[in-house]
Amino acid sequence: MQLLLISNSTMPGEPFFTWPRAHAQSFLDGRSRIAFVPFAAVEAQYDAYADRVAEVFSSFGKDFFSLHRETDPAKALASADAIAVGGGNTFLLIRALYRKNLVKPIADKVRNGMPYIGWSAGANVACPTVMTTNDMPIVEPPSMRALHLVPFQINPHYTEATIPGHGGESRDQRIAEFLAVHPEMPVVGLREGSLLHVNGSAMKLQGIGLKIFRQGQEAKEIAGGTELQVSLAGA
Amino acid sequence: MQLLLISNSTMPGEPFFTWPRAHAQSFLDGRSRIAFVPFAAVEAQYDAYADRVAEVFSSFGKDFFSLHRETDPAKALASADAIAVGGGNTFLLIRALYRKNLVKPIADKVRNGMPYIGWSAGANVACPTVMTTNDMPIVEPPSMRALHLVPFQINPHYTEATIPGHGGESRDQRIAEFLAVHPEMPVVGLREGSLLHVNGSAMKLQGIGLKIFRQGQEAKEIAGGTELQVSLAGA
Repeated sequence: MQLLLISNSTMPGEPFFTWPRAHAQSFLDGRSRIAFVPFAAVEAQYDAYADRVAEVFSSFGKDFFSLHRETDPAKALASADAIAVGGGNTFLLIRALYRKNLVKPIADKVRNGMPYIGWSAGANVACPTVMTTNDMPIVEPPSMRALHLVPFQINPHYTEATIPGHGGESRDQRIAEFLAVHPEMPVVGLREGSLLHVNGSAMKLQGIGLKIFRQGQEAKEIAGGTELQVSLAGA
Repeated sequence: MQLLLISNSTMPGEPFFTWPRAHAQSFLDGRSRIAFVPFAAVEAQYDAYADRVAEVFSSFGKDFFSLHRETDPAKALASADAIAVGGGNTFLLIRALYRKNLVKPIADKVRNGMPYIGWSAGANVACPTVMTTNDMPIVEPPSMRALHLVPFQINPHYTEATIPGHGGESRDQRIAEFLAVHPEMPVVGLREGSLLHVNGSAMKLQGIGLKIFRQGQEAKEIAGGTELQVSLAGA
């Protein structure tokens, strides 16, 4: 499989999709027709969102189309040679993938070699479930099971920082709760400005870095540039 | 109905359940036997959590028992004359209420006059759904529908503050997403150090304050001490 799993599209203060642009362009080298999944946005924003992402991918010289404009999105997918899944609200995204019967078609295509780019919610749905999202559960999906393209959970926008003077749970506390219930499943806290480039069983971490959380172990910091296994063996 | 819906048990730096203590004591005046719901905690923590809360309620001279120690929690509830629902993870809590067949028994009891105290996740499950929680969806409940004791959604631990330099969605952005999908449902952003005391159709806001969010309207700040209607009419 060929995956580019990106923590966040945009660093605060920068124009949309600036930092991952060169990574995305290089990842898509040799691919000409990109299917876009805008369903993490609220429905009224699909057009605007697709147009904004189209600008980015068109600047790489790609033919770009958004699945929300297709009457049969699963069929339209067959005409693409790469798929890009945008960020927004993970619950909106996974519910839409089920409603439009896209879960299995996307997973099958990607397992058969179609390159997959996802950022934020789009990185989360590449995991076994969406249970490590930071998003508000504003709709009820039929299932929290997701595409399961990697054998670990990603927490996008990972940070150990908290709001000064605020008593709500920190991200680390939330991930610890997840691990208490799912002790067998590692969580990758993917920092903003970081991505995982999966190439078969190998995986390269690009950008700032990540932290691996495992039940009963101290979290392990991994720096950008590190070569990993998708299994996380040895990491 | 008699409800005490508390944003947070504990202000940062203070001992457990300090700020709402006097409110809880006064709310429970005349009630002697309190059933506690510890299910927002992870299972290994039920005992420790119940013991910590028992200390608080015992200091009011109440008879206190935790439903996790009952073989038939719904039946045990009948021996109580008030119920307290603790905070933690909202998804753990609502899943447990369904698994233990407690959703309807609790809602019925409270609609028939049993006082209900809930903080954080325990305030969230008093709402129509759990869709305005801040918690990570670490387990999959059979439904996101909740006790529906009030006709609006609470967002506990509400703050408009964000983590400096972090690009993840603000609370206000998350609530705006909720409203875009549920335009008919108001959201009460209940600030830490704040609670709603519901008494029939009247409701008093105590503590710091809250913000009411409605689709297509500017958010409205309400100060602690304000008398409201449970319907939010006029607010």
